[in-house]
Amino acid sequence: MTAQQDAMYMARALQLAKNGRYTTDPNPRVGCVLVRDNEIIGEGWHVRAGQGHAEVEALKSVQDAKGATAYVTLEPCSHHGKTPPCCDALINVGISRVVAAMQDPNPLVSGRGLAKLEAAGIEVICGVLQEDAQVLNRGFIKRMTVGRPFVRSKLAMSLDGRTALASGESKWITSAESRADVQRLRAESSAILTGINTVLADDPALNARVDFDVVQPVRVILDSRLQMPLNAQMANLPGRTLILTCSQDQAKQQSLQHAGFEVHQLANDGNGQLDLHAVMAFLVKQQINEVLVEAGAILNGALLTACLIDELVVYMAPCILGDQGRGLFHLPGVTTMADKKILKLLDVRQVGGDVRLILEPQANPLQFKEFLNVIKTDELSLEDITVEVEAVRQIRHHGR
Amino acid sequence: MTAQQDAMYMARALQLAKNGRYTTDPNPRVGCVLVRDNEIIGEGWHVRAGQGHAEVEALKSVQDAKGATAYVTLEPCSHHGKTPPCCDALINVGISRVVAAMQDPNPLVSGRGLAKLEAAGIEVICGVLQEDAQVLNRGFIKRMTVGRPFVRSKLAMSLDGRTALASGESKWITSAESRADVQRLRAESSAILTGINTVLADDPALNARVDFDVVQPVRVILDSRLQMPLNAQMANLPGRTLILTCSQDQAKQQSLQHAGFEVHQLANDGNGQLDLHAVMAFLVKQQINEVLVEAGAILNGALLTACLIDELVVYMAPCILGDQGRGLFHLPGVTTMADKKILKLLDVRQVGGDVRLILEPQANPLQFKEFLNVIKTDELSLEDITVEVEAVRQIRHHGR
Repeated sequence: MTAQQDAMYMARALQLAKNGRYTTDPNPRVGCVLVRDNEIIGEGWHVRAGQGHAEVEALKSVQDAKGATAYVTLEPCSHHGKTPPCCDALINVGISRVVAAMQDPNPLVSGRGLAKLEAAGIEVICGVLQEDAQVLNRGFIKRMTVGRPFVRSKLAMSLDGRTALASGESKWITSAESRADVQRLRAESSAILTGINTVLADDPALNARVDFDVVQPVRVILDSRLQMPLNAQMANLPGRTLILTCSQDQAKQQSLQHAGFEVHQLANDGNGQLDLHAVMAFLVKQQINEVLVEAGAILNGALLTACLIDELVVYMAPCILGDQGRGLFHLPGVTTMADKKILKLLDVRQVGGDVRLILEPQANPLQFKEFLNVIKTDELSLEDITVEVEAVRQIRHHGR
Repeated sequence: MTAQQDAMYMARALQLAKNGRYTTDPNPRVGCVLVRDNEIIGEGWHVRAGQGHAEVEALKSVQDAKGATAYVTLEPCSHHGKTPPCCDALINVGISRVVAAMQDPNPLVSGRGLAKLEAAGIEVICGVLQEDAQVLNRGFIKRMTVGRPFVRSKLAMSLDGRTALASGESKWITSAESRADVQRLRAESSAILTGINTVLADDPALNARVDFDVVQPVRVILDSRLQMPLNAQMANLPGRTLILTCSQDQAKQQSLQHAGFEVHQLANDGNGQLDLHAVMAFLVKQQINEVLVEAGAILNGALLTACLIDELVVYMAPCILGDQGRGLFHLPGVTTMADKKILKLLDVRQVGGDVRLILEPQANPLQFKEFLNVIKTDELSLEDITVEVEAVRQIRHHGR
């Protein structure tokens, strides 16, 4: 088998993995292709947590896999979870070669599956189309390796950077096609995160309104002072709605629970607002891989300042709302050009009549340099350092 | 000669015409190709006002043009200007066929040149690649047909629609490549228009800093109250600097004139500010074809509201400045979504690390409908109607 053939079959396995894009939460998306004599004899992918892993589904599709090569987009598991270990299944049917796109990102088990296969005499290759496989499960990987979800913020704005008029009116700035694209983003996400002010202003449903099978994202509302109305629309919609608060008001917490919300009390940031790092840590405990932020300028500004946004998806409509309209990010800390938040442009394309831009926040080298100076003088709290270490990780990631 | 061959030679003539892009002001850019036996025997273009027209330059390049077809991107002139009529020159050398891209847009002479050629027994075709020829001279055409220049506004902003920090600091939001692209826009323009506040804040040079031959644009400063500092940088730069004012302060006017400025007093708008339609009418008298606006939110907002912007060129840098930064357009009249200014996206491309967007303001059908209702009740002033008729013209133009 040549490297080119390996890449070709792995591309097919990645294609299969993408079938699970909207349904595998909290599991990763995984695809598997079985090949013998340069011919695909079996295929499978992981559909839903609790159901068969990709390797098992692929083996099910074929009567005899003896001597075949298995292409898997993620290292086969060696441990008993909800299902038996895939390694054993591959060994038992007589697979002679396993090609994996990447190791399991969970540091506790990473490499063990491949080692077990090798110990059983199977030829093992790892790293074929690795970057593509990583992109597909960037939320799962981030949760396993960094201990927080992958956070994507969706913004809909006019050409002149306004998300709403001064009055708050925002229906509709972008085209129907852009709004449909947002539903797809929602469907891909494990959770949709917003602030209480957005709920109070718009009473949104925050569900994925799509015409395909989807595990609905969890709604997560940051509501530091428990202002959530008991009759908000989302109280009566299917699925979970989590209210995260730093309020200790037990009566309010209980009445919200009775209304159908889950209420979780988390640490505050010292200024009466939720600690955003505590929020992310909580979401990881909830097995949230990918968060879609749909919020106003205050929450987006706070997340950006805390280096907690991994990607921006901006729908820019060809219209002008004027400088009295609402902005994207409230950033009181930006007072000189050196403070500006630097982004990397990843993708620009037209969606309906709008332009969709995908961008990635970058660590600002100027700010980073200052941080190193500060570290030396021991003036940073452990929490500040955590934020900055995350920034360093981002630099390494982007440099690769 | 087939229609395809006609288009091919006209494309070459348009290419030649573009050689004059930076130098023909106030004349149009025109190119000419002479073809005989399906072979190009001569070429020429108009370089500079006062020098030969494209036809004459092409004829100069060939010893004998008898029986040839002349491809011209604009109807040959039939009148004596700074140079003798091109029609006569074409007739005298025995050209047998003339293919023009478009008629002369000047309503006083349009069609006369073609008629004169036909009367001399020459076969005449008009309209080949007409739209391309129109784009090339859209400023000249607008001045001749609508009585105002083509107005393009250049804006440099962050992703979140900010042209500067709250402090006014704006160096530099966009990349060096974008700033070089702006120098090209300046070189293409007949005039650069800005407001006095930009001059007071930045003391700009407003010249085209390019490494090719260029007729420098005229600087035009809107300075309603004559606040221009006598020691502004542009007072000592080569080229004209026009200060347009509605101030009647003769002493100030004279001291500015002594400092090297041209001062012109125009009508005010009833609120102590320059009447922007009067400004455009004045620029037409100065034979200004294309205006590049490089201004702040107040002037850009006023121009947009008055339907006096034909095109926006927006350089969007991948960075975020936050919602305290300065916006693009001050539009106090936009209070509901129905008031939003609608644009049409013409072009999106990457320039350096930035995204350059070219957009065209559209008449808002909602606003237009309201206008029609108002007309019926005779509540509009003649001036208001002029503005709206311009909007109707735009609709027709865009519909074509």
